[in-house]
Amino acid sequence: MPIPTIRWVNGNVRIIDQTKLPGKLQYITCRNVNSLWKAIKNLNVRGAPALGVAAAFGVLLGCKSYKGTNRELFVKHVRKVCDHIGTSRPTAVNLFNALDRMREVLLRHATCAVPKIKKALWREAFAIYENDRRVCRKMGDHGASLIRTNSRIMTICNAGALATADYGTALGVLYSAKRKKKKFKVFACETRPLLQGARLTAWELLRAKIDTTLICDHMAASVMHQGKIDAVFAGADRIAANGDTANKIGTYNLAVLAKHHGIPFYIVAPRSTFDMSIRTGAQIPIEERKPEEVTHWGGRATAPKNVKVYNPAFDVTDHRLITAIVTEKGIIRPPFGKNIRKRFS
Amino acid sequence: MPIPTIRWVNGNVRIIDQTKLPGKLQYITCRNVNSLWKAIKNLNVRGAPALGVAAAFGVLLGCKSYKGTNRELFVKHVRKVCDHIGTSRPTAVNLFNALDRMREVLLRHATCAVPKIKKALWREAFAIYENDRRVCRKMGDHGASLIRTNSRIMTICNAGALATADYGTALGVLYSAKRKKKKFKVFACETRPLLQGARLTAWELLRAKIDTTLICDHMAASVMHQGKIDAVFAGADRIAANGDTANKIGTYNLAVLAKHHGIPFYIVAPRSTFDMSIRTGAQIPIEERKPEEVTHWGGRATAPKNVKVYNPAFDVTDHRLITAIVTEKGIIRPPFGKNIRKRFS
Repeated sequence: MPIPTIRWVNGNVRIIDQTKLPGKLQYITCRNVNSLWKAIKNLNVRGAPALGVAAAFGVLLGCKSYKGTNRELFVKHVRKVCDHIGTSRPTAVNLFNALDRMREVLLRHATCAVPKIKKALWREAFAIYENDRRVCRKMGDHGASLIRTNSRIMTICNAGALATADYGTALGVLYSAKRKKKKFKVFACETRPLLQGARLTAWELLRAKIDTTLICDHMAASVMHQGKIDAVFAGADRIAANGDTANKIGTYNLAVLAKHHGIPFYIVAPRSTFDMSIRTGAQIPIEERKPEEVTHWGGRATAPKNVKVYNPAFDVTDHRLITAIVTEKGIIRPPFGKNIRKRFS
Repeated sequence: MPIPTIRWVNGNVRIIDQTKLPGKLQYITCRNVNSLWKAIKNLNVRGAPALGVAAAFGVLLGCKSYKGTNRELFVKHVRKVCDHIGTSRPTAVNLFNALDRMREVLLRHATCAVPKIKKALWREAFAIYENDRRVCRKMGDHGASLIRTNSRIMTICNAGALATADYGTALGVLYSAKRKKKKFKVFACETRPLLQGARLTAWELLRAKIDTTLICDHMAASVMHQGKIDAVFAGADRIAANGDTANKIGTYNLAVLAKHHGIPFYIVAPRSTFDMSIRTGAQIPIEERKPEEVTHWGGRATAPKNVKVYNPAFDVTDHRLITAIVTEKGIIRPPFGKNIRKRFS
């Protein structure tokens, strides 16, 4: 059912170009670190777990370009590659987690010859990739238990196959529910400014033959008020130790609405999205993107010139608005601080 | 400062073509009822009070096309014109109020000759127009008392000069506050799907030299959470006897958010927007518009073909989420049922 978003093919990284969807299913082949960096920056590939895999594969692209045998120079080179990839996008912690894992491989193999280090990096990158695939399926299976027959689910942005290697976090739950023959409908928020909900989620879900209705983001309140929603499922870009969750801008809006209407609000994210080094969501850096994403459409201005724009890519949802967090280790419920520690220790 | 949105010029109705903004300030001259009906349907002219004026002027266009002297045929003709204009858009009650006023003129002059009835209709239409201009300024002045120095105001859609004859309801409050030399900033929600906030409100406010920041609709929650908003001002398309308010889709979303963040939420609307014949908002008919408004941009698809779409043009805000309603008769506070009756009796 799901579709491979990112793969290592013939020594290169092959990704679906998500900026072309839903019009065209087209691939980009990244042959070096720079082209991968640009693909991340331009959102050709996006989604926290997919960015983790992309970062790991990016390090392999960096290895490829080092032809020498000097261990110290090689390690220095790979560290630079890691640092460079880390400048692409600031919010999704999976990207930094993957880079940290690659850096640890360097440390662990400090006395080895270059080919051996390369091999270890290779193994680690593929472990990250395979782990994502396994973990998404586990999350999906845990989360599917939260979906009752004839549920109506709301989701935002794209936390699907396109946001991971090939299965999804929030949408993985739906894929698992469907595999278990559960019946449900989905309301997909279009997710301004870049319409990942309209372009990617609706595309993925229709492809999987899941009943999907598209709405503009601020219609969510009205739809909930009409009693049409039984649960909200969203992904995450970074989760603090207390459960505060950074995700696509608008997620916090949905969480407030869900609270007001008495609707359960679930986050679905793997261990690699948790950043136990930060206490609360206030410490999560929030990427601001360029005004043109809001003021222009297909190159045409839809707002007056010189209007000021605020365009954060993410917001932070207070853990008190979250009903539960679905992880590969099971479903975590409040009190989050304590239960997250327990689950991952 | 404000700009005339709709005027009677040389026997025709001249309106700003709001679908061309902010790119071009361009006018449409409606020479007959059909062209006006289309202009309403296509949102070339929109906004509840402006629709009231447009409907009244539309009846005058209808009068023009009747060249005979038979009173009964004339009255029948004008009634048909009224009925036809009433089919253009279902939610804004001002449109129906204006048509009712024109129909009453017919009743009151049932025994007069055609030229006399025409003259009375003419007077009534201009009374509606002049009343809108006067009433907007009164609302603005009442509402300005709610704006404190250095306030940060959020608004949705366009409840400005472009939604009325020439001054605005919610934005009229801002124009009055500015005239009183108050300092404030505005966050304008872009208002999907048709971007009246980005295209119209930002354009109007920048033209009036008011500090304006544009955001996507679901960023409102994050902006409020950051403590950046002191009050929300919105217009209305129809207000029930208990204070429940139909307005542009997304208004209810903002009201829930404002409640959650302890921010006052104000509706600004004239007497003509109140529909005392209905008890609660549940009885207000909500216009659903075509899916393409959500799935297409400048003719290009931004969502997969065949995805289902829910595209209501309005939502209803429960009166319990409204802090006060600003009218030309002063500011109405809860309990709304009692106080609305008192104010307008």
